[in-house]
Amino acid sequence: MEKTTIQPNKQQLLNRLKRIEGQVRGVHQMVDNDRYCVDILHQISAIQSAMNKVSLALLEDHAHHCVMNAVQNGNGDEAISELMDVMKTMTK
Amino acid sequence: MEKTTIQPNKQQLLNRLKRIEGQVRGVHQMVDNDRYCVDILHQISAIQSAMNKVSLALLEDHAHHCVMNAVQNGNGDEAISELMDVMKTMTK
Amino acid sequence: MEKTTIQPNKQQLLNRLKRIEGQVRGVHQMVDNDRYCVDILHQISAIQSAMNKVSLALLEDHAHHCVMNAVQNGNGDEAISELMDVMKTMTK
Amino acid sequence: MEKTTIQPNKQQLLNRLKRIEGQVRGVHQMVDNDRYCVDILHQISAIQSAMNKVSLALLEDHAHHCVMNAVQNGNGDEAISELMDVMKTMTK
Repeated sequence: MEKTTIQPNKQQLLNRLKRIEGQVRGVHQMVDNDRYCVDILHQISAIQSAMNKVSLALLEDHAHHCVMNAVQNGNGDEAISELMDVMKTMTK
Repeated sequence: MEKTTIQPNKQQLLNRLKRIEGQVRGVHQMVDNDRYCVDILHQISAIQSAMNKVSLALLEDHAHHCVMNAVQNGNGDEAISELMDVMKTMTK
Repeated sequence: MEKTTIQPNKQQLLNRLKRIEGQVRGVHQMVDNDRYCVDILHQISAIQSAMNKVSLALLEDHAHHCVMNAVQNGNGDEAISELMDVMKTMTK
Repeated sequence: MEKTTIQPNKQQLLNRLKRIEGQVRGVHQMVDNDRYCVDILHQISAIQSAMNKVSLALLEDHAHHCVMNAVQNGNGDEAISELMDVMKTMTK
């Protein structure tokens, strides 16, 4: 059976991702219109920061729900190793 | 007069940004379909890393063209301060 | 009662920190001897990366031991919130 | 001839590095005394942030002095490539 996760703040996450998609489209347009690259770089930093917030929100829900359930069902070590792998990717 | 920059690798940048936009839309769909959040987090990391490559490519072109021109025209200090501000945002 | 943690790999961590302390002293000496700043910057990056490895090792031990114990003793939510706070500081 | 750099804010940099060395020694002591690992992790984050400030200060001086001189002497491309390499290491 495939693992699934119903996000507790699903609609909020979907809205944020919609907005980020629009921001990426905006950067595409800035490049297409030969906009000054320093302005583009600041806009990309804003996207990175918005994306990072989505990551942390997902991670937080994951830790409070999936990881806690796993520990209570005796699969804690596996769930925590998986959590650490994600964190290593995120802090790289 | 507004500053503009014609990117030397404009088409390549536009292609990359198109791909990133698609990846963000993919993450939106993963959340919508209740996909396992660890998989979503790894996908977001891939987007962050692709976005970081776009930043560095823009920064590199900017430094080799705009900054060098500015130094040769006697506006180097201002151009380099601006470059450092972008760097600070990117390493934050 | 104050919280304490006996690190499972205590001696290895202490050795790594000793080495990092020596590397910081080395950077001090490089600045003092007017060494080329690009070389200094690469050396600082090496320190940052060594320090990051110490953080991740501590975090991993913490999650597998303290957080798991806390969940099993019914204090999981608090322990996981604390873990997320550290994560936020580390990915900032 | 070996490249050297006399830092314009040499004494301030040396003081900061001395302080960071003391902070690393402090973390060593915290581990040795079995201090709570979340406290240690916050302390390491403070060191990383102090170290990052030293990097940015060095980078800023480097860009305003060495890179500008190089551009004026016709070696700009080489100096800027070197600067970008350092920046890539720092944003990795």
